[in-house]
Amino acid sequence: MEPQQPQQQQQPQRGDWARVPASCVARRTHNPLRTIVEELAIQPNPDKHFIALSIGDPTTFGNLRPAPEVVKALHDSIDSGSYHGYGPSVGHLEAREAVARYSSTEKVHVEAKDVVLCSGCSSALDLSITALASPGQNILMPRPAFPLYRTLAESIGVETRSYNLLPENDWEADLNHLESQIDENTAAIVVCNPSNPCGSVFKKQHLKDMLSIAARHKLPIIADEIYEHMVFPGHEFHHLASLSEEVPILSCSGLTKRFLVPGWRMGWIIIHDRNGLFDKEIRKALLSLSQRTIGSNTLVQGAIPAILSNTPQKFFEDTIKVLQDNADLAYDILSEVKGLRPVMPQGAMYMMVGITVTLFPEFSSDLDFVERLVSEESVFCLPSQCFNYPNYMRLVLTVPKEQMEKACKRIAAFCQRHHQDYLSKRISSVSIT
Amino acid sequence: MEPQQPQQQQQPQRGDWARVPASCVARRTHNPLRTIVEELAIQPNPDKHFIALSIGDPTTFGNLRPAPEVVKALHDSIDSGSYHGYGPSVGHLEAREAVARYSSTEKVHVEAKDVVLCSGCSSALDLSITALASPGQNILMPRPAFPLYRTLAESIGVETRSYNLLPENDWEADLNHLESQIDENTAAIVVCNPSNPCGSVFKKQHLKDMLSIAARHKLPIIADEIYEHMVFPGHEFHHLASLSEEVPILSCSGLTKRFLVPGWRMGWIIIHDRNGLFDKEIRKALLSLSQRTIGSNTLVQGAIPAILSNTPQKFFEDTIKVLQDNADLAYDILSEVKGLRPVMPQGAMYMMVGITVTLFPEFSSDLDFVERLVSEESVFCLPSQCFNYPNYMRLVLTVPKEQMEKACKRIAAFCQRHHQDYLSKRISSVSIT
Repeated sequence: MEPQQPQQQQQPQRGDWARVPASCVARRTHNPLRTIVEELAIQPNPDKHFIALSIGDPTTFGNLRPAPEVVKALHDSIDSGSYHGYGPSVGHLEAREAVARYSSTEKVHVEAKDVVLCSGCSSALDLSITALASPGQNILMPRPAFPLYRTLAESIGVETRSYNLLPENDWEADLNHLESQIDENTAAIVVCNPSNPCGSVFKKQHLKDMLSIAARHKLPIIADEIYEHMVFPGHEFHHLASLSEEVPILSCSGLTKRFLVPGWRMGWIIIHDRNGLFDKEIRKALLSLSQRTIGSNTLVQGAIPAILSNTPQKFFEDTIKVLQDNADLAYDILSEVKGLRPVMPQGAMYMMVGITVTLFPEFSSDLDFVERLVSEESVFCLPSQCFNYPNYMRLVLTVPKEQMEKACKRIAAFCQRHHQDYLSKRISSVSIT
Repeated sequence: MEPQQPQQQQQPQRGDWARVPASCVARRTHNPLRTIVEELAIQPNPDKHFIALSIGDPTTFGNLRPAPEVVKALHDSIDSGSYHGYGPSVGHLEAREAVARYSSTEKVHVEAKDVVLCSGCSSALDLSITALASPGQNILMPRPAFPLYRTLAESIGVETRSYNLLPENDWEADLNHLESQIDENTAAIVVCNPSNPCGSVFKKQHLKDMLSIAARHKLPIIADEIYEHMVFPGHEFHHLASLSEEVPILSCSGLTKRFLVPGWRMGWIIIHDRNGLFDKEIRKALLSLSQRTIGSNTLVQGAIPAILSNTPQKFFEDTIKVLQDNADLAYDILSEVKGLRPVMPQGAMYMMVGITVTLFPEFSSDLDFVERLVSEESVFCLPSQCFNYPNYMRLVLTVPKEQMEKACKRIAAFCQRHHQDYLSKRISSVSIT
């Protein structure tokens, strides 16, 4: 990616009244995922039921629904009549206190003053990136990565630089590559754990290694932890902040994924800062930025204490079970498919599947592979180019099991049909007859 | 106000690890209202019940509550189970269709494609300003004005220029002054009608005059119409777009004020553009910007069709009656007070009251006047400096009538006590005895 030099862009000219020009910021605001998906020819096979393994919304298929306790909490908040008015731009105190309790661990004590409620985790990321990075600076982010980081950063003229995640190491970061990307203009490092799109969960030592690099270069971290606690049995989630002695961290999370309510738009930033490095400017910056749009929905804020207290553990376990069963199922089927390399996830809601495009000579690229998969099998997976990474596709694991199975079998049949071995047989059989 | 030259600001330096610096954008993000209020010494008289005539939240006092139909619509939306997931970043189609119907008039046909749902009207203003204006450009806004316009514009490096509203003409704009502020870098004009903080409602001809200026200079308008329809009997509200033949308009509104649900954060932009001037860039810009934070609360979106259809006319009339009764009451009391000049409002939720500071020799400024009013009478009105205007204070008209009366009587007593005539009597009586 090229550094963004917004000030050198041509200023929009007004006056011809044939059109009103968009601002520089608007022109720089660009979601690469949308562009790639819009340019794909997505034409499902009319004879086969369409299965969208592309949508990172766990509520889409109807099999995963918010807990009754969560829905009740919101009804109660409405009926209390106490939450129709404006709240403080960072959120009501009781809600922030509840989030602080929820986000505290044995090692990390979070207080209400450390919590900024936001309109979804996207807003939390927006505020965090905007507070820390100025035009001309850069931030580091993983590759593959959730594309919103880039959208948000480039929109405000901040350059994005990627550090590689290594599929052969369960998508751990290439630490040397990470460190090599840092220069004097680096403002922050984005760490996403558990990972979208990889479904990986970083081990404690790996997180410590990342923290060491941040400490050595005196860089704050933006930790995208929206999939916190969503890990499969046998793996462990560590808040980055619980391992940090020194590095200040803005941890972004929310109700969205774990509580299965993305549309409620309730996210938050937890300010982790043992040494007061954020005290002079960043806390004030987050407050000022929150005042631009006067915060998040207050009815949901009113429900947060009950939501975080009353949701039964079994609800979370049930969700994890759905995800893991689908992961196991998909892995079992797809690991037998020649030309594919599924990477078994450890958490979140996704599985990445490598495509050895050279083994499918009919397809010029991974995008071509994905397009043809839709048109022949009515199964749509996001090509990893949406995440700034080639030759993988991302499968969403939140679908009902029977759809997961059907989708994977269709993928397998598709690959068998188009694999070079099959093609050569087909050709040779043609030449024999 | 000085032009903003963000790129000439010193770039934050990192590296000393004593503090993490805030970004340029964060440093530029500044709400003048908050600063002024924070610097005021607001110490109510402990012997008198505190009455805050400062808060522009109609739900604060408990006398104005959302209609039962509105609350029911939200419960129903939750129970439908259809609105827990992400919606399109510009909002669900049915919600946008409902807003389009609500915003259409005999003269203006609005379609769903012209509606962008936002997280409150603040977000609608944010998107509109950000879509239209680039760093180095300027936008025009009224004086006095809602301070958020300035916060939003300066935050992204856009200069703000004010055109005067004239209290002697029911706060109509000084059209010559408005036109004189336009230069080749002007990107848009902000018009607020009905007005916060003035409570004025522009007449049809005045709006047409403003449109003529915009047309002559080929400038789009951002119409802050969040107080649409909130006008007192005998006055008429005209959507700016209903009068525009040519000028493209982004009209910002929402549920916030008229439906008494500010905390629900549901606003919208209506794109009015008869000649397709916004087609090439601005529609796309608004879409891109909406994707930064993935839109507004979907549960409220799900309730919008029922809210806009089912809220009875009487609900709106009842609210207007509360506002007008308070306006009449306050005007009656305060117009008799020497040293004050209340301007009778025509709509919205506010009354501006001029303070002839020179008649109160103990007070060095309007801020001083307001501070002393709090400390002696426990009545807090926002000084008009919060709105970039001197020597007025803004009274909120949404309080219960008995509080309005009590507050105004206390203001009257306070003024009598401190007016120069009283002081001279006090002094002369002192010198006699």
